[in-house]
Amino acid sequence: MTELPRPGVTGTLARFVADTQPEDIPPSVQHEAKRALLNFFAVALAGCRTEPVELALQTLAEFSGGRQATVVGRRERIDALSAAFLNGAGANVFDYCDTHLPTVVHPTAPLAPALLALAELRRVTGAELLTAFALGFEIECRVGAAISPGHYPKGWHITSTCGVFGSAAGAGKLLGLDAKRLVWALGSAATQSAGLCECLGWPAKSVSVGNAARNGLLSALLAEKGFSGPAEPIAGAQGFLAAMGEPPNWPGLLDDLGKSWEVANNSIKPYPAGFVIHPLLDCALDWRRAHPDATVERITVRGNPLLQQRTDRPEVATGRESQVSLQHAVAAALVTGKAGLGQFTDACVNDPEVQALRRKVEVASDPSISTIAIEVDFWTSDGRQHSAATQAARGSSANPLKDDEIERKLIDEAKSWQPDHDIRPLIDAVWSLDRSDDVSTLARLAVPG
Amino acid sequence: MTELPRPGVTGTLARFVADTQPEDIPPSVQHEAKRALLNFFAVALAGCRTEPVELALQTLAEFSGGRQATVVGRRERIDALSAAFLNGAGANVFDYCDTHLPTVVHPTAPLAPALLALAELRRVTGAELLTAFALGFEIECRVGAAISPGHYPKGWHITSTCGVFGSAAGAGKLLGLDAKRLVWALGSAATQSAGLCECLGWPAKSVSVGNAARNGLLSALLAEKGFSGPAEPIAGAQGFLAAMGEPPNWPGLLDDLGKSWEVANNSIKPYPAGFVIHPLLDCALDWRRAHPDATVERITVRGNPLLQQRTDRPEVATGRESQVSLQHAVAAALVTGKAGLGQFTDACVNDPEVQALRRKVEVASDPSISTIAIEVDFWTSDGRQHSAATQAARGSSANPLKDDEIERKLIDEAKSWQPDHDIRPLIDAVWSLDRSDDVSTLARLAVPG
Repeated sequence: MTELPRPGVTGTLARFVADTQPEDIPPSVQHEAKRALLNFFAVALAGCRTEPVELALQTLAEFSGGRQATVVGRRERIDALSAAFLNGAGANVFDYCDTHLPTVVHPTAPLAPALLALAELRRVTGAELLTAFALGFEIECRVGAAISPGHYPKGWHITSTCGVFGSAAGAGKLLGLDAKRLVWALGSAATQSAGLCECLGWPAKSVSVGNAARNGLLSALLAEKGFSGPAEPIAGAQGFLAAMGEPPNWPGLLDDLGKSWEVANNSIKPYPAGFVIHPLLDCALDWRRAHPDATVERITVRGNPLLQQRTDRPEVATGRESQVSLQHAVAAALVTGKAGLGQFTDACVNDPEVQALRRKVEVASDPSISTIAIEVDFWTSDGRQHSAATQAARGSSANPLKDDEIERKLIDEAKSWQPDHDIRPLIDAVWSLDRSDDVSTLARLAVPG
Repeated sequence: MTELPRPGVTGTLARFVADTQPEDIPPSVQHEAKRALLNFFAVALAGCRTEPVELALQTLAEFSGGRQATVVGRRERIDALSAAFLNGAGANVFDYCDTHLPTVVHPTAPLAPALLALAELRRVTGAELLTAFALGFEIECRVGAAISPGHYPKGWHITSTCGVFGSAAGAGKLLGLDAKRLVWALGSAATQSAGLCECLGWPAKSVSVGNAARNGLLSALLAEKGFSGPAEPIAGAQGFLAAMGEPPNWPGLLDDLGKSWEVANNSIKPYPAGFVIHPLLDCALDWRRAHPDATVERITVRGNPLLQQRTDRPEVATGRESQVSLQHAVAAALVTGKAGLGQFTDACVNDPEVQALRRKVEVASDPSISTIAIEVDFWTSDGRQHSAATQAARGSSANPLKDDEIERKLIDEAKSWQPDHDIRPLIDAVWSLDRSDDVSTLARLAVPG
């Protein structure tokens, strides 16, 4: 830790956020922001009727004042801080949200809810929303890069620990904070950075993701009122990077600020499972389509070490756990021919055919295989070995989902929640955000009429 | 980290909390709980009119529903979660609260506010309050012991990171949660554990302390509704101890549970400064009383390494910063003959005489000196060297404040805020807590009439 303290780091990030104007955001970055927002609404609509959101809504409602802000997909309105919490939690319940591949951060779940809740409190234009989104995304992912690759494997839920920086920066931008106040907001965010991977697969995971959204917004609101903090919360001697205990990746945090944009490294998921499982699902679904009647006796998987580290769960008990089980994912995909939310339910987990096939999956790690690639062998009952491989999973930056595929994902999730919910006005509103004078009603379009 | 995972650890703590009954709490432990509560009200009355509490109250009020709970020392009422936040923040603003010496946790600031807020929502007896307090204190300090001594020097604000466990356990006990639900509450607490020492001396510090109180209460309320979490959030492979990255101190966490009580190691502060500065203040005040007219030219201090690590701040700009500056503390004590809140204000920091004397302080570390001891030499203008030393600072467990000294501290703080506030009914209510059927009005006695 001899590289710390490093004064001026937080100030550099804060000045970047304060100084960047809508016209500084390249059109391609704006477009990626819109894609991320469309996907956010899709996953929040999927998450809004789950137990974590239901129970947290009941709990928070007892303490909430006002009906300030929208809970995506629900008629109930709640105070803006609690709306940020619930929408952040809901968007990440199924791990179906976007992924910043270099860090494995899910950047939008903690970020968009803070901005949307604030847009229901204060007048915000579409261009301001997109700018704040791009900046919050940037800060969140750069902080993630600064502590990668050591942070996540230690047990930190990087989406939560870094998400709070993104929501603080983005909300601070919407509030028009100057660089000094943005440093304060980032300080209050840093001292709230929390979240453990042990909670993955459980409602408890939603607490830290919801907090990342809520607490970043709170940090910005406090800073607006003059609630001050240290000059160097991120790179101070007793600051965030020191406590997290890894030698910081300074280039990942600071290089090319304002020249490169991390939203360009964003990937939108086609499947509601841990991202490292995606190439495996691509292979399983493609192979099943080509061999609809084959009986699989054994499956051998070779993937990046992260696949085994994070998702080697041959026995799972719940739908939520199954989203981070490579064995369940490949078995369910082969049995049903699909990999949607229906394949990651308690019912599918307890399907005897899926259970039996889960036990026939073997996994090996090969560091030469990237996290978006995989090699799989399907051994069939006729004694044959079928080799399959993917170099770039669908939804990865090398093979991104097309715009209309993201629209379809949102339409499907809206219909799955309320069959008569016409989501097209929301889709149109997001694509035309840069021309909107007032985005206060955007989130309401995600509520069934 | 080969010692992790260690299944059953969180369950052991949860069963201890669930199974312990009021009659299992020894009278001496009950008495210590009452002393801690009296001191809590004193420090919360000191903190309630400070900028962090003022600005956080303004900010949270916009989102708060109902006037459920008391903000100590203030007429405003607010929802119970926000009251827990504000009272936790307020009680710790001046670092004037109690200290668990083995860990340097300030246990009561995050704990008491959660219990008192809950006692305004649900019917709670005095015996139940004392039991929940003793149990929350125990869990909080044992978790602190598990990650000590490495945790705090890395930059983690241990009061905040461990306080959330205490408030979750204590609030869970008041709610009557069974062991399964207490594990869930401790899981939601673990994934919210946060707080950085970089924020010490700034309002931002109050965010993590307030959160520890609020989020522990929230964790317990969520668990009551069935919001579940992992079986082993503390000692799981990706749980709290793994992420915090130190080899766990298992005996500190688990040995003699229910036989020894950590509240016996609690120390109540006579001075509103970092605890490691206290022996220095004892020496300075005693020596000044004995030599009222001597002019000090130089001061040399030899203390435990923690003194220098945490409080070697020759230049300070604000009253808050000055509370963790050994140079300021000794200078102000020598100049004014006192070491109360008036010696840790912006005005005292900027007093030219204090400023001049601050620059004449030298500090050296000696590991053979304990954190409650010190050796000081005062060099006077007549060329003489006066040696002073303390083996056990006032307020340490070896030299605890007397009950009437704690009462006096509370009376002084109540008067200092509102001269006509009769605090005696609160003092009587705390001493007789074990005979109270309903403590819902206890905190209101800390509000000026």
